[in-house]
Amino acid sequence: MTQLHGHNFLAGGLQGSEKTFTAVSPCDGSQLAGAFAMASTADVDAALTAAAAASGPFAATSGEQRAVFLERIAEEIEALGDALLERAHQETALPLARLTGERGRTVGQLRLFASMARDASWTDPRIDRAMPDRQPLPRPDLRRAKRPVGPVVVFGSSNFPLAFSVAGGDTASALCTGNPVVVKAHRAHPGTSELVASAIAKAVEACGMPAGTFSMLHGQGSVIGLALVKHPATQAVGFTGSRAAGRALCDAAAGRPDPIPVFAEMSSINPVFLLPGAVAERAETIAQGFVASMTLGVGQFCTKPGLVFAVEGSELEAFRQAVAKAVTAAPAASMLTADIRDSFAAGRDTLVGLDGTATLATAEATADTGKTEATAVVAQTDLATFLADPRYAEEVFGPASLLVTAGSVDELAKAADALEGQLTATLHGTEGDLAAAGSLVEILATKAGRLIVNGFPTGVEVCHAMQHGGPWPATSDSRFTSVGSAALERFIRPVCYQDLPEALLPDALKDANPLGLERLVNGVRGQH
Amino acid sequence: MTQLHGHNFLAGGLQGSEKTFTAVSPCDGSQLAGAFAMASTADVDAALTAAAAASGPFAATSGEQRAVFLERIAEEIEALGDALLERAHQETALPLARLTGERGRTVGQLRLFASMARDASWTDPRIDRAMPDRQPLPRPDLRRAKRPVGPVVVFGSSNFPLAFSVAGGDTASALCTGNPVVVKAHRAHPGTSELVASAIAKAVEACGMPAGTFSMLHGQGSVIGLALVKHPATQAVGFTGSRAAGRALCDAAAGRPDPIPVFAEMSSINPVFLLPGAVAERAETIAQGFVASMTLGVGQFCTKPGLVFAVEGSELEAFRQAVAKAVTAAPAASMLTADIRDSFAAGRDTLVGLDGTATLATAEATADTGKTEATAVVAQTDLATFLADPRYAEEVFGPASLLVTAGSVDELAKAADALEGQLTATLHGTEGDLAAAGSLVEILATKAGRLIVNGFPTGVEVCHAMQHGGPWPATSDSRFTSVGSAALERFIRPVCYQDLPEALLPDALKDANPLGLERLVNGVRGQH
Repeated sequence: MTQLHGHNFLAGGLQGSEKTFTAVSPCDGSQLAGAFAMASTADVDAALTAAAAASGPFAATSGEQRAVFLERIAEEIEALGDALLERAHQETALPLARLTGERGRTVGQLRLFASMARDASWTDPRIDRAMPDRQPLPRPDLRRAKRPVGPVVVFGSSNFPLAFSVAGGDTASALCTGNPVVVKAHRAHPGTSELVASAIAKAVEACGMPAGTFSMLHGQGSVIGLALVKHPATQAVGFTGSRAAGRALCDAAAGRPDPIPVFAEMSSINPVFLLPGAVAERAETIAQGFVASMTLGVGQFCTKPGLVFAVEGSELEAFRQAVAKAVTAAPAASMLTADIRDSFAAGRDTLVGLDGTATLATAEATADTGKTEATAVVAQTDLATFLADPRYAEEVFGPASLLVTAGSVDELAKAADALEGQLTATLHGTEGDLAAAGSLVEILATKAGRLIVNGFPTGVEVCHAMQHGGPWPATSDSRFTSVGSAALERFIRPVCYQDLPEALLPDALKDANPLGLERLVNGVRGQH
Repeated sequence: MTQLHGHNFLAGGLQGSEKTFTAVSPCDGSQLAGAFAMASTADVDAALTAAAAASGPFAATSGEQRAVFLERIAEEIEALGDALLERAHQETALPLARLTGERGRTVGQLRLFASMARDASWTDPRIDRAMPDRQPLPRPDLRRAKRPVGPVVVFGSSNFPLAFSVAGGDTASALCTGNPVVVKAHRAHPGTSELVASAIAKAVEACGMPAGTFSMLHGQGSVIGLALVKHPATQAVGFTGSRAAGRALCDAAAGRPDPIPVFAEMSSINPVFLLPGAVAERAETIAQGFVASMTLGVGQFCTKPGLVFAVEGSELEAFRQAVAKAVTAAPAASMLTADIRDSFAAGRDTLVGLDGTATLATAEATADTGKTEATAVVAQTDLATFLADPRYAEEVFGPASLLVTAGSVDELAKAADALEGQLTATLHGTEGDLAAAGSLVEILATKAGRLIVNGFPTGVEVCHAMQHGGPWPATSDSRFTSVGSAALERFIRPVCYQDLPEALLPDALKDANPLGLERLVNGVRGQH
């Protein structure tokens, strides 16, 4: 067992506290080893003051230096070995196989962003050359490139203890472009957070990065979370969590003397639309895929399909039966925390208890409270009932979903139009279904960040074309993504340099193009 | 004289009102022809409901169709001929030569955005092809392109009655990418606004665009301005104006059930740093350029240099004398409105009246109140006094500026560090000065959207490399620009399409690449 010191990581040093907390394992309710220091607002100030001091030197590092740094973080995480996975399992109840995959994704993300740092195309260099003889006025030499914004605060998420926590996508994309990071560790997995933070701290030291490049604090969101967002040095925030918490952070950031952007990924019910041809053709396959997707990770994915819309009719019966069969057989499973399990139970009871809701199926297994378990449920209602009560469209985080039946495909479009913003929207249809569903596709493109045909929304690929971000309340800013290489765009801003001498220009804009970048020169893109 | 009907433009129709207002000419205080209808909140709702209805069809137009539409707007504006310039002159007191130039810039912007619409590279297409055999999980086909966000509300500005008003840069960049626009006309130039709106309305009809593509309302910012921002259909806001008004709009947008982005360009004092070598070498030339820049357009540019920092010493005397000479000789000139003139007078009096301020020079000319005139002033103080009172760093909109003297170049860096966010920052230096001023350049890059060496900040080129937007309070979101081709990035968001059949994909993402775009395919950029 790795010894955990429980301290906060403060710009290269460790900081204890009189107040500590311990972690409880959702696997069996046991108290886990380690007493974790609750950070104070003074620690918040120290971390961000150090981050501000590091901003200039860290921004001035080369892309190659930051790439090596990110790769080193990945190596240090891998070097933690099974101890990391075991602690993460104890703290989250997520299976080791899943955590092994998530670790792979985490180090993969770090290496993807290392390649982005090396490549430097994120600077989006543009040059409009001087036209000294232009009439009536000459044009100066104008060059524009993007640069880091400064200290970024990252909130670890509960449901991805590795890929969206201390060294997750937010941290990797912020570090990639030269922004110091202060992480607020999630309270549910402090030991996992400490282990990963120690990997980053080692990489900071080994690569000679400024001490303030990275800090990580344990503590209460309502105290240090808001203090982190309100600190004058903070320039942007990355968050994955509940709608209420995300809104509180957005409001705090918007209320600052100098508002800053918060990239909050909050709430999505990920509607699935079943078109009649597809239901007639392969109701059972769709039902099995749907139940597998909604119960994956005990329904604790932001992309869990929480709503299924279908046209009522005799052929839907096969879908219902297959869903019922799969849900009935679904095993009970441990959720991430007792709070999450309690919220799920409450949300599930609300959904099932609404007038006009019927239970389509519940798992036969019994949930063991001592193991923080929950069981799956699928409820059903009709479209008129659904549209009349906004509670039907609230996210229930966990293995619950609602089947909503409509009278026609046209009514499905009406349902789509009534939805709030979503991370994803899914269509199941035959070629004929889809050809006839044009307006539905167009409506869903206004509602969601990702459209899926004949698949399921869980499984978010880390790549260039991914968009993980949609209109409110899915995320706080639909113009950005938190997954994939484009995630780095959240933490950079352009600066235009007018008539600067070559020596003062960033490398991306120098005449000789020392970074070998594709640039937009007088409106023409090329490696010049 | 063109007859003005005074109505609001409501999605292709005209809408009058019981309540009207008239325009007053700042040239002589006379009441101008035309009674303009004050829009109601019902008109706001009608305009945005129509805009929402137009969103789908307008988004579905081709880039070529929108390019022709934007070019038609430009032609219709040109067809208004001298009547437009004359009315604009009467309403703003801006000289005809300036307005002629501004009209050229306005139609130039429309044509630039037409070329951007045609080009479609703004969709930033990315394709990551399926890998069905990948282990442990296959990769689906993922394609990402940007699309319009939906109805955009644009607030006309006082100081650019053409280039940042009804058919200005905000409108052009929103229309270019397929977003309907509802303009709140600035109250100071309703006749100019009507003429330009009529040009857009003609183009909408001639090009067969949906009626809700464009509306324009007259009225009070505190009533219909906030209603426009709070309307559920509004997806983004463009604004140029005061810090107080911009903040109010940002707060209203952030307080919505579904917050939306506001792109507010608000307040900037555009500091100029004089390095000692440059002062020794060419104090007089710099002084003349500085006074010309601060008095250009009667100091009514968002990029007016309102602060000059220099190292105290005998050589600065030549600069002071040349500034005094130029300011003393500067003519009185009419400001845009009586309110702006009164605000200027108050701001000027505050600045000059602060303990520790001395007047370096005031214009000898007498301001004619009947002509809404103001005269230039330059005050001076030392750095310690400046740093002790934040009122020194407040924007005074009009021909006033403050010289702040420091003890050393190191102190100039301290001054830079203390500044709020800026649209621009300027350095005057010899090669030697600049080589020694490295940290100053780096600090200014964190404070401003545009850095200028040996020039002046007024004159904002419309091009690809322009960045007109800096940290708060210069603008509300430093990651975006309101001038130049990148301005369109404010009004688009990405959508990822997973396993969509070819027929349902946007053209930018189809296999055959029918738009001939450069695309990022499996991470490799090329025309494929």
